[in-house]
Amino acid sequence: MTKIRVTVWGENVHERTNETVRQIYPSGMHQCIADALNAAGGIAATTAVLDQPDQGLPPGRLEETDVLIWWGHAAHGDVDDALVARICDAVWAGMGVIFLHSAHFSKPFKHLMGTPCNLTWREAGERERIWLTSRHHPIAAGLPDHFELEQEEMYGEPFGIPEPLETVFISWFQGGEVFRSGVTYKRGAGKVFYFRPGHETYPTYHDANIQRVIANGVRWAFNPEARLAAPSAAPNTPVENALEAIQERGPKLHAKGESGYK
Amino acid sequence: MTKIRVTVWGENVHERTNETVRQIYPSGMHQCIADALNAAGGIAATTAVLDQPDQGLPPGRLEETDVLIWWGHAAHGDVDDALVARICDAVWAGMGVIFLHSAHFSKPFKHLMGTPCNLTWREAGERERIWLTSRHHPIAAGLPDHFELEQEEMYGEPFGIPEPLETVFISWFQGGEVFRSGVTYKRGAGKVFYFRPGHETYPTYHDANIQRVIANGVRWAFNPEARLAAPSAAPNTPVENALEAIQERGPKLHAKGESGYK
Amino acid sequence: MTKIRVTVWGENVHERTNETVRQIYPSGMHQCIADALNAAGGIAATTAVLDQPDQGLPPGRLEETDVLIWWGHAAHGDVDDALVARICDAVWAGMGVIFLHSAHFSKPFKHLMGTPCNLTWREAGERERIWLTSRHHPIAAGLPDHFELEQEEMYGEPFGIPEPLETVFISWFQGGEVFRSGVTYKRGAGKVFYFRPGHETYPTYHDANIQRVIANGVRWAFNPEARLAAPSAAPNTPVENALEAIQERGPKLHAKGESGYK
Amino acid sequence: MTKIRVTVWGENVHERTNETVRQIYPSGMHQCIADALNAAGGIAATTAVLDQPDQGLPPGRLEETDVLIWWGHAAHGDVDDALVARICDAVWAGMGVIFLHSAHFSKPFKHLMGTPCNLTWREAGERERIWLTSRHHPIAAGLPDHFELEQEEMYGEPFGIPEPLETVFISWFQGGEVFRSGVTYKRGAGKVFYFRPGHETYPTYHDANIQRVIANGVRWAFNPEARLAAPSAAPNTPVENALEAIQERGPKLHAKGESGYK
Repeated sequence: MTKIRVTVWGENVHERTNETVRQIYPSGMHQCIADALNAAGGIAATTAVLDQPDQGLPPGRLEETDVLIWWGHAAHGDVDDALVARICDAVWAGMGVIFLHSAHFSKPFKHLMGTPCNLTWREAGERERIWLTSRHHPIAAGLPDHFELEQEEMYGEPFGIPEPLETVFISWFQGGEVFRSGVTYKRGAGKVFYFRPGHETYPTYHDANIQRVIANGVRWAFNPEARLAAPSAAPNTPVENALEAIQERGPKLHAKGESGYK
Repeated sequence: MTKIRVTVWGENVHERTNETVRQIYPSGMHQCIADALNAAGGIAATTAVLDQPDQGLPPGRLEETDVLIWWGHAAHGDVDDALVARICDAVWAGMGVIFLHSAHFSKPFKHLMGTPCNLTWREAGERERIWLTSRHHPIAAGLPDHFELEQEEMYGEPFGIPEPLETVFISWFQGGEVFRSGVTYKRGAGKVFYFRPGHETYPTYHDANIQRVIANGVRWAFNPEARLAAPSAAPNTPVENALEAIQERGPKLHAKGESGYK
Repeated sequence: MTKIRVTVWGENVHERTNETVRQIYPSGMHQCIADALNAAGGIAATTAVLDQPDQGLPPGRLEETDVLIWWGHAAHGDVDDALVARICDAVWAGMGVIFLHSAHFSKPFKHLMGTPCNLTWREAGERERIWLTSRHHPIAAGLPDHFELEQEEMYGEPFGIPEPLETVFISWFQGGEVFRSGVTYKRGAGKVFYFRPGHETYPTYHDANIQRVIANGVRWAFNPEARLAAPSAAPNTPVENALEAIQERGPKLHAKGESGYK
Repeated sequence: MTKIRVTVWGENVHERTNETVRQIYPSGMHQCIADALNAAGGIAATTAVLDQPDQGLPPGRLEETDVLIWWGHAAHGDVDDALVARICDAVWAGMGVIFLHSAHFSKPFKHLMGTPCNLTWREAGERERIWLTSRHHPIAAGLPDHFELEQEEMYGEPFGIPEPLETVFISWFQGGEVFRSGVTYKRGAGKVFYFRPGHETYPTYHDANIQRVIANGVRWAFNPEARLAAPSAAPNTPVENALEAIQERGPKLHAKGESGYK
């Protein structure tokens, strides 16, 4: 059986510049996540980082990626707008995508949501408890109704996202907040999953439950169908090819064979 | 009772350059729509067009607009990106917005949806029948379960939009297509309504049912609450102000009082 | 301006049998809620209780009710199935309905949801903090982004409801749980709002924020259009009345003018 | 790889009493559908009919069914309420279910939806064209953007269902109507798919595209996780077992260890 091809993209900034983060993730968070996915079964994960040529995603790479995972924080603004457009195109054509933690403010996530994606936050190493709200959702397969991360950054509501297709997880925070921590969307032919945990100063991506959610998310977001060739095309259907026979009538704007406006 | 303040924005291109369109809408489609709204009761509608200073929406105008109506077609690409950003900010802060017909490809609609917003189309003056799918929806108040436009441009599925919050209308076309013609969304604090009919070579905006849908849409999209001051803000909640007493612990990335990354 | 006609239905059991509850709500929770609504402006609220004739809702009462509010707990099983059917019919025809707290297990709520509507619970007088998740939602008008009830019963996820149309509020509980406390639905032509707080041993319905949510909910659920005459009808459209001219062809099951199966 | 276990339930009335139907489906529609599923790969389908003992679904049968397919029309009222309750319990516990055509008025579908599920209809052998509205949805895998059934019964909007989780297909009818022909829901832990085509006097279930949709629907509705043991349970979490240490305070209704009201 062919494996699901995952590219884990990380900005890889704090892993190099912050000693705490480096000690937790000596090969980077992206590598930690990819290692866990490769151990999960049925997934072939590789990595890409911001300071590589083409910011790690040269032409052709997205076409060979079934599911893209994105983690960014300090360098959101450095991501090329042209790359953001290519990512959105790939999603609309059928690529799955998972945004992790601070990627709520990444360019591709904001572009796919159409909303501010803002929230409240606090970095105090407090306890987070993640509750399942959609029983038997494939993203929660094998997980209990709740599990904990002893130390995490807090993200609080109101979370500036569109009403989700499904709310899968909601987090409880020790300091008094709640947050919709696992939400799904569809954008064009592609599936989108946002998953909250993963502040870089804590060992969250070493946690077995977190790894399981991400692997489940990959399987959920994967679509085996061939990528759409032209996900944004707006084809004209000429009157002579109409599915039901009709007569053209009335005034027209467009000459025959002319393209529409974009 | 205070009236709802509506700004009807039109690109006003074909009304000036195409004789057919000029004859149907001698004062422009925007003016036809505004006139109908002003006659509907409880609404104070004004207009704005592309070739005015600041493309018709100078600083302050959106702040005094409760609901923005947008019609564009030939000149989508001419709309300033900075204006698009101001419009999205206003919607996220609570302004209602209605996109009409070819505005499915306008910059602000695509930006708010996060999808290609594409479709199939045919300009043949065929019959369109609009069916109600959500009974008693306020946008359909006073309308029958179906009504017709004898001549319209065809728009066909698949329509590249996110799964709507509500599907209010679906259109039947003589040539064999269907289309989700009335769909609602919420983006930030603002309500969004897309309504399909309105090709410029037909007298659609003179139709009583169409005028009623647009007036209903204005009332539905209107929010009497004050605009949010900072709809994209992501405030830090310091540990000493946490709603529940907690102790800061573990490693930190951010110095005290530092802003988050955007 | 005509007032919205609200009927507040309460089972009125513990108010009579439990001394604690009687002291907090000497006239019953239903009366406390109705008094608050009558003071809110634009609403004319009356009450109905289980031990009245026809369980408080005789023929004609629902027809004169714009929005029904339902509180039940100990006597869910005593509510007549025929009354439940009349309530659902009224909702499908356009009546708004608000279910409060333990009404999650009431017959009409379960019937309208099609799910178990179950949850976890704990009666320990713990703190509940209610967070807004849908900014500027009319049900949250005038409310802060969060507010507290110092003592409440805990309800926890997973909450066995369908994916809501909108999630308006999520609760945080001191003991570690979260709960989708304010959720909306549409059923037929009628709007449905479930709101969690209101355990009978605490003074929740005396709280100003809670009273405001319920009054907002009434205004949101109210539909000024006339009730649908036959919300469950499945009319046949004979071929001779088809909107487009078609010829009948092929084999048939039904004789001309015959009703469909139900 | 283990096959998905499907039970195709048919009321099997018109196949026995109507000569036209018998000729098209000599072994019954249920058998035609089961045969197609068994040929599709990865699916092991068996059948059950109304006039068997326990109406074809004796104790234990649903427990061994991964996905139930339901076709009924003339005999909706004969289905035992106790069986309907067992079906809903199985869905809430994780069983997938697909309702076909006239099953929109079946007891289990109405019970799971909480709405009238009504529509308009016409039996005239007209052309139906089914349009895809959610590109790359797994239920549409391998299908074109539209396909036709030359003769079908018409079902028209407004369709009295809750706002779907996803609208996958919309039908165009020759006589002028539209209909949301493929819609998905989740109810408890179980997935629900309604698919419109299949009037018994036409050879719809012999159509390759229709067979493909149903096989796709089975794969989509299947959940490999173990069925929930008690999908309607509402467990008490005693204060001494609270996830966060809290002190019980305030008045109580329930004695220690007491069950909640249902």
